Amino acid sequence: MPVYSISHVENVRVCVVMVGLPARGKSLIAQKIVRYLSWLSIKSKCFNVGGYRRELAADVGDFTAEFFDPTNKRGLQYRQSAVDSAINDMMKWFVNENGVVGILDATNSTKQRRAEILKLCRDNYIEPMFLESWCDDQDLILQNILDVKTTSPDYVNSESEYATKDFLKRIKFYEQNYETMDVKHDSDLTFIKLVNVNQQIILNRIESYLESRIVYYVMNLHIKPRSIYLSRHGESEYNLTGQIGGDANLSERGWRYAKKLPELVLKSLGEENKHTNLTVWTSTLNRTQQTASFLPYKKKLQWKALDELDAGECDGMTYEEIEQKFPEDFKARDDNKYEYRYRGGESYRDIVIRLEPIIMELERQENILIITHQAVLRCLYAYFMNVPQEESPWMSIPLHTLIKLEPRAYSTIVSRIKADIPAVSTYKEKGTSQLGEIVNGTTSSKSRDLINDSKCV
Amino acid sequence: MPVYSISHVENVRVCVVMVGLPARGKSLIAQKIVRYLSWLSIKSKCFNVGGYRRELAADVGDFTAEFFDPTNKRGLQYRQSAVDSAINDMMKWFVNENGVVGILDATNSTKQRRAEILKLCRDNYIEPMFLESWCDDQDLILQNILDVKTTSPDYVNSESEYATKDFLKRIKFYEQNYETMDVKHDSDLTFIKLVNVNQQIILNRIESYLESRIVYYVMNLHIKPRSIYLSRHGESEYNLTGQIGGDANLSERGWRYAKKLPELVLKSLGEENKHTNLTVWTSTLNRTQQTASFLPYKKKLQWKALDELDAGECDGMTYEEIEQKFPEDFKARDDNKYEYRYRGGESYRDIVIRLEPIIMELERQENILIITHQAVLRCLYAYFMNVPQEESPWMSIPLHTLIKLEPRAYSTIVSRIKADIPAVSTYKEKGTSQLGEIVNGTTSSKSRDLINDSKCV
Repeated sequence: MPVYSISHVENVRVCVVMVGLPARGKSLIAQKIVRYLSWLSIKSKCFNVGGYRRELAADVGDFTAEFFDPTNKRGLQYRQSAVDSAINDMMKWFVNENGVVGILDATNSTKQRRAEILKLCRDNYIEPMFLESWCDDQDLILQNILDVKTTSPDYVNSESEYATKDFLKRIKFYEQNYETMDVKHDSDLTFIKLVNVNQQIILNRIESYLESRIVYYVMNLHIKPRSIYLSRHGESEYNLTGQIGGDANLSERGWRYAKKLPELVLKSLGEENKHTNLTVWTSTLNRTQQTASFLPYKKKLQWKALDELDAGECDGMTYEEIEQKFPEDFKARDDNKYEYRYRGGESYRDIVIRLEPIIMELERQENILIITHQAVLRCLYAYFMNVPQEESPWMSIPLHTLIKLEPRAYSTIVSRIKADIPAVSTYKEKGTSQLGEIVNGTTSSKSRDLINDSKCV
Repeated sequence: MPVYSISHVENVRVCVVMVGLPARGKSLIAQKIVRYLSWLSIKSKCFNVGGYRRELAADVGDFTAEFFDPTNKRGLQYRQSAVDSAINDMMKWFVNENGVVGILDATNSTKQRRAEILKLCRDNYIEPMFLESWCDDQDLILQNILDVKTTSPDYVNSESEYATKDFLKRIKFYEQNYETMDVKHDSDLTFIKLVNVNQQIILNRIESYLESRIVYYVMNLHIKPRSIYLSRHGESEYNLTGQIGGDANLSERGWRYAKKLPELVLKSLGEENKHTNLTVWTSTLNRTQQTASFLPYKKKLQWKALDELDAGECDGMTYEEIEQKFPEDFKARDDNKYEYRYRGGESYRDIVIRLEPIIMELERQENILIITHQAVLRCLYAYFMNVPQEESPWMSIPLHTLIKLEPRAYSTIVSRIKADIPAVSTYKEKGTSQLGEIVNGTTSSKSRDLINDSKCV
């Protein structure tokens, strides 16, 4: 029984063709789009021409600015081969793997190059959507250069000052031939042009639903540094008895976590940021609101969309009771936890659908703390960390632990802060109805603990 | 316990300043935005300067094109007074009635006029957002003129050919002083510029969440003529026993409705449109899918967001049982049916929140048939017909009746087609747990039957 949402795409294949000089945030945008669409079960992949170039021209060694000089014939050849390979792989991926949104991440800086890609797309019944990131704000460009040079494989062994200089030189070479997109000359093309991130946005011939979703997502992105804090509610009375769902109050230990949470947040903010004002989001259920009740921040919002997975007829039961009463359902859920929908309740996929507007709003926010529930937190975490669907419902996200996510240009830094207040384990392994032992804010070692203490994905 | 969604707006007040020549669809866009935001509980109002002008200059009688001649001093005076009155009323409304989004629906065609409004907004801590509808597609303009002249009070007594000529002349007068918005000269302003509806869209400095929602909504609008068909599922076995919720099958009479539905749709499409291809949306519940099962259309989608209001702990009970078991809840629901949330279930407000993406997608669709449930259908109907929140949960939407909505420029034509197959009434009046008598596809006469047989709202 397929259920539709944005993830329903009717035989549409879109090639997002990135356009822009180096250090305009193209790769960041491309990667975010892929992550967002993949989370929504839309098959998407980014084809980064830089990656192909590094592989094909491995013998070149260092990619100094001179490699990108338009008069460097050898460089040009390598670069052309890199583009060809990327496009070739993308076309194969559309056909052989039923790809839906392919992103060609390259500068695609001339009208001629774009015309070639356009033709190729049209010949293959793929809708081309150009996405130009145009920028003349020098601060933004320098910020991007800083990000690139600290993360780009091209400068992995270079000194900082040298890397900046060389990169600026590389940009100059690209500027020689760069042709921006333009409502007059490109009026027949489907394109989005972002001017200085999203200070100004020009949309031309955005027609399909999928294209309009990508536009809306991109519109909501910002690049201000920020942290996202995630926590489950404190241990609840239902957790003690192993019951799922319901609207129970916190246990005595759960209240201790709630009281300690402000201190954990402060510790994680660090001395210099201790006056940072967080926005706090909770679900509409008692246990998340009680957990938030000692936080000193004024802006606390409740979202129904953050409520725990609805277990329908199984609400209030223990896993053992479910196994006894609905053995087939119990097995079906273990076999495909992401798709399994409780009788009269929800699946993980259903949660993703209802979280979609939350993700959009979350992208707009700055520093934020979200107190929610195990299944919902798994889905949020999967979005930020690009965790595949088959894994996300099995992630261990223990009670009494604050998770901090710091999005960077090409990665997200994760750290977790344990409260050192014991709690039951609510982690159920595949094939059993037993939960783990009481642990000190962590789960039993057998669980798939995808969240390590400090991890950069 | 307030629950947030888009309807949560943090102390932001926005004045949407429409910009555009006559016959550019400004009023249509303005009214749709007000309807959409009001449905989401965001207090919004449109201030139409034309309406003020007709009232203030009632002594003028006919508003022929000459009235709008920039050299007509008396005309100018009246028009200035009309703008002043509209702005004055809007400012009062922001302050006295805590307005959130006010729309100034006028041509606002010069930079000077826009600068005045800008200053006034800034002085009053209101965010100005300009929304220009620019159009050079003559077919579109003529289509708009046709809409306007057949609905505008200015041409109520005029002959068709005269009205077109006069209106074109009026447009010529406005064109003399018209200054379009422009990313160069207006780069400091927050604005949306729509070029030929949404063939091209320019967004400048869209910053707040509310603004970005308005943008996304406007992006999704189209002006192709279409019909929207709404139907509840056929009578279900739960309907027979007066139980709410659940996932029952159709009753024998329900199946008869399902079998007759294709014929009703054909009848309503009319002979000339009988080959129209409808998209069919249902919920994920058996009774809506069974109702759709005889429809010959290939494109059938199921949406979880179209499922019936979740009655939580009351799922499967009759209203009498609810009254006995939860007398206080029963009364609380009658007192404020829109806000009342079933224990562990949903309120009407919750449904509106989950329907919001459906509305967005619905705006993009052309001809469509939606088979859903009583509460959900009330919310959808309320959106299209601008039914206030206190009334929408009490609307009577009988079983075995197909509703057809035909959106027009300034109104929606409603017609309903009865299947002539008896069904129980599922309409519960305030203050009783009794349902109506078995009726022939209609409800008892006491119910607030907001849907008349043919109505134009």
